[in-house]
Amino acid sequence: MRLVTFRDGSGTRIGALDEAGAVLDLAAADPALPGDMLALIRGGEGALAAARAAAGKAPIAEGVTIIAPIPRPAKNVFCVGKNYHEHAKEFANSGFDATAKEVVPEAPVVFSKPPTSVSGPHDPIPSYLDASASTDYEGEIAVVIGKGGRGISEADAYAHVFGYTIVNDVTARTTQHRHRQWILGKGIDGYCPMGPAIVTADAAGVPPRLSISTWVNGELRQRASFGDLIFGIPTLIAAISAGITLEPGDIIATGTPAGVGIGFTPPKFLKPGDVVRIEVPGIGVLENPVA
Amino acid sequence: MRLVTFRDGSGTRIGALDEAGAVLDLAAADPALPGDMLALIRGGEGALAAARAAAGKAPIAEGVTIIAPIPRPAKNVFCVGKNYHEHAKEFANSGFDATAKEVVPEAPVVFSKPPTSVSGPHDPIPSYLDASASTDYEGEIAVVIGKGGRGISEADAYAHVFGYTIVNDVTARTTQHRHRQWILGKGIDGYCPMGPAIVTADAAGVPPRLSISTWVNGELRQRASFGDLIFGIPTLIAAISAGITLEPGDIIATGTPAGVGIGFTPPKFLKPGDVVRIEVPGIGVLENPVA
Repeated sequence: MRLVTFRDGSGTRIGALDEAGAVLDLAAADPALPGDMLALIRGGEGALAAARAAAGKAPIAEGVTIIAPIPRPAKNVFCVGKNYHEHAKEFANSGFDATAKEVVPEAPVVFSKPPTSVSGPHDPIPSYLDASASTDYEGEIAVVIGKGGRGISEADAYAHVFGYTIVNDVTARTTQHRHRQWILGKGIDGYCPMGPAIVTADAAGVPPRLSISTWVNGELRQRASFGDLIFGIPTLIAAISAGITLEPGDIIATGTPAGVGIGFTPPKFLKPGDVVRIEVPGIGVLENPVA
Repeated sequence: MRLVTFRDGSGTRIGALDEAGAVLDLAAADPALPGDMLALIRGGEGALAAARAAAGKAPIAEGVTIIAPIPRPAKNVFCVGKNYHEHAKEFANSGFDATAKEVVPEAPVVFSKPPTSVSGPHDPIPSYLDASASTDYEGEIAVVIGKGGRGISEADAYAHVFGYTIVNDVTARTTQHRHRQWILGKGIDGYCPMGPAIVTADAAGVPPRLSISTWVNGELRQRASFGDLIFGIPTLIAAISAGITLEPGDIIATGTPAGVGIGFTPPKFLKPGDVVRIEVPGIGVLENPVA
């Protein structure tokens, strides 16, 4: 099942996508369903089963706007850096990596983006907020946590996954480098487009059979299989939850493949009017114009 | 005024400290007051004035437990690294800084700690969660944002400050170094003791006349004037809000002075049974045993 958050004249609520991509209005079929995605996720197996039942009889909602599946996360989005081999190389060679000397990290490099950075699957990326004009795209698959916990073992990790969505980890490269730690360069308002849907874990498979492609103005820039991560989902969940309690609805953006703008010489930064399109078959398309 | 969050048999609510440090039960004097600290801060000048009026006639609440003034922030706590000259030197010399080559950063080094890391002013620090046994203290003064905004100028910055509290930016040093970016080493559950109170901006002065001291088992380890920050409060608020909208109740831990455990040779890491006491006259004492 693919779950979305949408809004229309009667407010914001959750829906499911049918095979053709139309939005099914779950609350219209079952008014007792949790009212937003975080509540649905916190509701566990029971809430998910109710959503599934509702999707079977829900009417199509016409003329709606799909927004980020979790429009306001309850904490910063966890993000992983340098998690595909070829991207780790291009980043090291770009001169924008202030993190460390090594190309491939010995352990997951984790940082965060604040809830205020999250935007919808078609919202403009406000690159005018980056005074250094060095804004770059990073197409990523993100894990949405279902069951929380601390000290989650790699063997148990997939049992804690609610589903997967797409994130563009938009980055102001000069700011990222200048401040050493990455939150200021990556946490700018609107620099975390998310969506359009969360594909539930059962539909994605274990391990998930997903691949990601990114185009800028129609030109293919990134393409990778989710299986090529340096640190896979079990490792990431175990590493983060070793000391930090993961909670239902937490989001972990797993890192971007090779092909970002700073991988080119000279760098191909985003400029107003560009369009970044990220597709993960089975989830959908995250397509954002640059403002 | 010093504001606290406390709990007793009837639940969790906000209070003010009288001069002797007793907790005044604000809701008992004015049941219409916002029910928690975030709501009070979001209520702006009006809510603060109401709290002030309530404090003038509120009864003392006996037998209560003071918890973190903002027990569950709505996003990660912003934190600043390497923001006192002598500490920047001791960190560089310790070998635990994977951030960069330079000792004094050219721009604020900002990272975050998740809401799940926040604990109360007397809660134990769970150092048993740090398998590498390299847990260290960092006494810090934190700014609590009152009025939100983006693109806040240095000249306007103090008008956006609600008040100040104390944070211990507890850090698992080996984890901090190993993962390059700092959230995993600094974001562990219970690694952000906070409190006991928020002193309101009007009481602290502009700029605030505050100083901080840290003791471990009664031995003075850190002492500094808040005025000695490399990047002062106006610079920090301007740097963070350049691209990120700051919201009411956001917390910015401003950095720690020299004297942390890794400043010694060999390092003096915390061990179970130790007690870390951080005092900021005008705010109070944050004292946490190590578990």
